[in-house]
Amino acid sequence: MLQTEYLGYAAGIITTLAFLPQAIRIFRTRQTRDISLLWAFAMNLGIILWLLYGIEKNDLPIITANSITLVLLLCILYCKVRYKQNPAEDGKSAEKT
Amino acid sequence: MLQTEYLGYAAGIITTLAFLPQAIRIFRTRQTRDISLLWAFAMNLGIILWLLYGIEKNDLPIITANSITLVLLLCILYCKVRYKQNPAEDGKSAEKT
Repeated sequence: MLQTEYLGYAAGIITTLAFLPQAIRIFRTRQTRDISLLWAFAMNLGIILWLLYGIEKNDLPIITANSITLVLLLCILYCKVRYKQNPAEDGKSAEKT
Repeated sequence: MLQTEYLGYAAGIITTLAFLPQAIRIFRTRQTRDISLLWAFAMNLGIILWLLYGIEKNDLPIITANSITLVLLLCILYCKVRYKQNPAEDGKSAEKT
């Protein structure tokens, strides 16, 4: 059982830290052309639900992983909405630099 | 308890379906410049571990959600590796169109 918990923590750490290079890439390039807005929005919503599921089940790996993932995904969603600087890709006219 | 299961299924369905518009966007534009390779790779690895965790815990929402997510993430990772057509963004020289 303890081994299963470790598996959960490993999964949580990897899928959580995975969003770090993605967030860093977006912060660095300030480009979100190839990121789907629907993906970013739905992921935030879904991760909130996973968090509630973890709380209900009192499952610490799920709670910990999804809390951190939510923070990083909120940053990515913010950037996606903020950096609409490529009209051709985002389908909007914007002249911000 | 049944209500918690529904919460898990809702979370699983949303975070799973979230990858569908992302995968479609990549298939359609054939652009993966703003997608982090490290994110795509780590997500695939992490989701495999979540799947194993779900199997160990006999947790059907986790098993179902992560199985489908894995398929979509494998497609995204494949495209990220395949469509390295933007030298400026991907840091590689390629002349494919």
